[in-house]
Amino acid sequence: MIVGDGTPLRRSLKRGSHGHRSLPDCGSRVASREWELGAVHTKARRRGSMQCLTGNTMGEKRIQPRTLKGFRDYLPSTMLAREQLIDTARAVYRSYGFAPIDTPALEYSEILLGKGGEESDKQLFRFRDQGDRDVAMRFDLTVPLARFVAMYANDLGVPFKRYHIGTVWRAEKPQRGRFREFVQCDFDTIGTTSNTADIETLLVIHDLMDRIGFERFEIRVNNRMILNGLLEQLGLRDRSTAVLRALDKLPKAGPEAVRTEMQLAGLSHEDTNAVLEFARRGGEPDDVLRRLRRELQTDSAQEGIERLAELFRVAQAAGVREDRLRLDLSIARGLDYYTGTIYETFLLDLPQIGSVCSGGRYDQLAELFTRQQLPGVGASLGLDRLLAAMEELGMLDSRSTPCTVFVPLFDPQHTAEYLAMARRLRSRGLAVDVYPDPKPLGKQLKYADRKGFLVAVIAGEDEFARGVWQVKDLVRGTQNEVPDADLADAVIATLGAHPQ
Amino acid sequence: MIVGDGTPLRRSLKRGSHGHRSLPDCGSRVASREWELGAVHTKARRRGSMQCLTGNTMGEKRIQPRTLKGFRDYLPSTMLAREQLIDTARAVYRSYGFAPIDTPALEYSEILLGKGGEESDKQLFRFRDQGDRDVAMRFDLTVPLARFVAMYANDLGVPFKRYHIGTVWRAEKPQRGRFREFVQCDFDTIGTTSNTADIETLLVIHDLMDRIGFERFEIRVNNRMILNGLLEQLGLRDRSTAVLRALDKLPKAGPEAVRTEMQLAGLSHEDTNAVLEFARRGGEPDDVLRRLRRELQTDSAQEGIERLAELFRVAQAAGVREDRLRLDLSIARGLDYYTGTIYETFLLDLPQIGSVCSGGRYDQLAELFTRQQLPGVGASLGLDRLLAAMEELGMLDSRSTPCTVFVPLFDPQHTAEYLAMARRLRSRGLAVDVYPDPKPLGKQLKYADRKGFLVAVIAGEDEFARGVWQVKDLVRGTQNEVPDADLADAVIATLGAHPQ
Repeated sequence: MIVGDGTPLRRSLKRGSHGHRSLPDCGSRVASREWELGAVHTKARRRGSMQCLTGNTMGEKRIQPRTLKGFRDYLPSTMLAREQLIDTARAVYRSYGFAPIDTPALEYSEILLGKGGEESDKQLFRFRDQGDRDVAMRFDLTVPLARFVAMYANDLGVPFKRYHIGTVWRAEKPQRGRFREFVQCDFDTIGTTSNTADIETLLVIHDLMDRIGFERFEIRVNNRMILNGLLEQLGLRDRSTAVLRALDKLPKAGPEAVRTEMQLAGLSHEDTNAVLEFARRGGEPDDVLRRLRRELQTDSAQEGIERLAELFRVAQAAGVREDRLRLDLSIARGLDYYTGTIYETFLLDLPQIGSVCSGGRYDQLAELFTRQQLPGVGASLGLDRLLAAMEELGMLDSRSTPCTVFVPLFDPQHTAEYLAMARRLRSRGLAVDVYPDPKPLGKQLKYADRKGFLVAVIAGEDEFARGVWQVKDLVRGTQNEVPDADLADAVIATLGAHPQ
Repeated sequence: MIVGDGTPLRRSLKRGSHGHRSLPDCGSRVASREWELGAVHTKARRRGSMQCLTGNTMGEKRIQPRTLKGFRDYLPSTMLAREQLIDTARAVYRSYGFAPIDTPALEYSEILLGKGGEESDKQLFRFRDQGDRDVAMRFDLTVPLARFVAMYANDLGVPFKRYHIGTVWRAEKPQRGRFREFVQCDFDTIGTTSNTADIETLLVIHDLMDRIGFERFEIRVNNRMILNGLLEQLGLRDRSTAVLRALDKLPKAGPEAVRTEMQLAGLSHEDTNAVLEFARRGGEPDDVLRRLRRELQTDSAQEGIERLAELFRVAQAAGVREDRLRLDLSIARGLDYYTGTIYETFLLDLPQIGSVCSGGRYDQLAELFTRQQLPGVGASLGLDRLLAAMEELGMLDSRSTPCTVFVPLFDPQHTAEYLAMARRLRSRGLAVDVYPDPKPLGKQLKYADRKGFLVAVIAGEDEFARGVWQVKDLVRGTQNEVPDADLADAVIATLGAHPQ
């Protein structure tokens, strides 16, 4: 394509003095359409416009619209479900006192990688910026949180409860359901070792799942202190990372694969059996914990046991149904990071997708950045995994409009009346879409049907003369005539009578 | 810092099989705190942990926590205001039938720059990714929208009404109030030339400002067809870009600067006077438009006049107050992009900050990517500018918690009762924060005061024995004792009695 007026990009990229809308260079390209439309838009002819036109109408190659590998667009129906899920998460986080923060998408690579990350890493979108700084796009929200609290700990005070819903980027090999750009939904309580915060974390996860609309789910908890107590007792303290990483694979890989991995890590047949037997223990939490109290001697293990015992007691008192909470000694979480209570959450109807909300307690969030001891506890909602699950379970509807009420532009002479009526309905809390073009009514209603509107409000000359509206229930196909003054009530009643 | 166990970054960067929480390499660093805490965490000793410890406790340099130049963190009080503003924008957009979409932060540079952008541009965060692709971070939401509609136009159908609230990046020189990362809040109606869509755009802007809480604002409208009609009549068609760009600076730079710029662009003294006289015209829209109808002969100018006339007529009928809408012939908008109605929005109490919501109609959104004619109209809310204005006008409160109700952990024996009570209040729609540590009550209340809680619910041994709670109004300093069964009602009544 030939650029029309040679406007330097720098200039067109500039945010205008009055707002943010700008299009680099496209201004000059777009200008060519004056000519295509001919008489309708007899606008100024500028140098180069003709070239632009020639380029396009003669079929010069346009730029192929496409997204990068591992990236994707969100169309309205997906995005509506996504926004609803995020809204629910925010509402629950907020109801427990977690406050939002945000951090930049770009950070110094040193911050994200630590000083060990001098060598370039393939999984990071990392580059040199205009100031020749070594920068990278954040790959999670935990490292930025560590930097954040190290910088503002004194201003924020403790406990500091924050949620952070933000996009992160990883240059991983894209796989089915795994993208290079995704949203994380974290919440954490920083600056306290109190078990109350651990219990509250559990309650947040519970209320999240409940509010999203899941009936059959199970939060599985464990405590790293207990696992470490076992390993200590078995004399396997120096293998703990390898053992916990192997154990973490139990639900997906199965016991035989885990057994093999543990033995490769140097565990004896007996030790492997002991760990797997331990991980398989089931039963009432009270019974399991009573047995652990006798078996594990370290102070740390005893502390872990008492913390879990209190968690089960208080959760029940606070109204968490017994069948939604389980003590699962096999839960290890892969990362060294965790030091206390750990959480995973499974959908009982789709256990194979893995945990949809996981987290745990850690002793030191920000050691990389500060001497200050910053323990905390938190978890992360697996947004994409949850959306996939909801789709599979039929929990998402396929509507692609946020509105329920559709107003066809039946008679363009009455645009003012349609738009005024729509604003009146909006003031009653309704979401109303007015069709902009006076196409045949059938076409307009087909559009409404495809988008998933629930009610149409229609009027033509006759209705305007009589001061009435037709309220058409698009789900049931029924229709009522109502006087203008009763319209909002009639629409609300029609919507209220719909199932769901 | 010395890295403990040499875990390759690739491995630790991997999303775990159970969720998204991970910390690259930090696992090994964090592990060192086992030793610092000594007996409390008698965990596995791993190779290298001791080195880590030595490094840290001996004062080896930590990484300085900092953000990149031109980037910033959002602390809770700012972020709460930001989320509220975004929620309002979303609610208004949705109530008019605009549906959300999202697009990737990273795109092929070719997409963002057009083919003219082969030469590197300093304002773009642009780099080669791991697959050696020439990629860049999006600098606005309009180019991605153009690509998006070019790709999905057939699936989406027209009219396509979307909003897009997303972060964009520009490597501009940072200035006061201008950052390299900011959020845009756009809405557009694509695929129709109907003036109804133009009028609706105006109504959306109006309702946005109204719902955000502004009382004194003015939406100024103009139409490019009218400006172009004037320039045509003056024989200045070939100067239109220069003239419109100069005119766009009128509110900020003043008439003398604009006059100078026009004359530099080659306009005669008479032409400059004619344009400036035209731009200065005020009065009732009806009168101004009537005069224009006589003066401007082109079909296009006549069409622009009629579209504005209908806009004023319908807006008034739809309930837009007369003083909030103004015909302003001086509004040009800097970009070639616009071809019809244009909008700017000023706060009458802070006119100097410029337009806080701007936009307009364009004839061809996606010519770079498709032969399909995609006209549209839309606008963009200047989120950061608006937040700055709200702060200046005292419209933001300084609370840093999303909760209203604070529950001190007065007696840790009763943790279960506090947490259960808090959940009961939440089920009544209240947001409740339970303090996790059993510190002295005074300290806990000081925390509540600093964060901006409005009510505290307190109980100790005596209250538990009698089945009552103390409800303390933290704003007024009053306190009431209420029976357990009446607690939620009492808290709601106390909050309801607060001003605002």
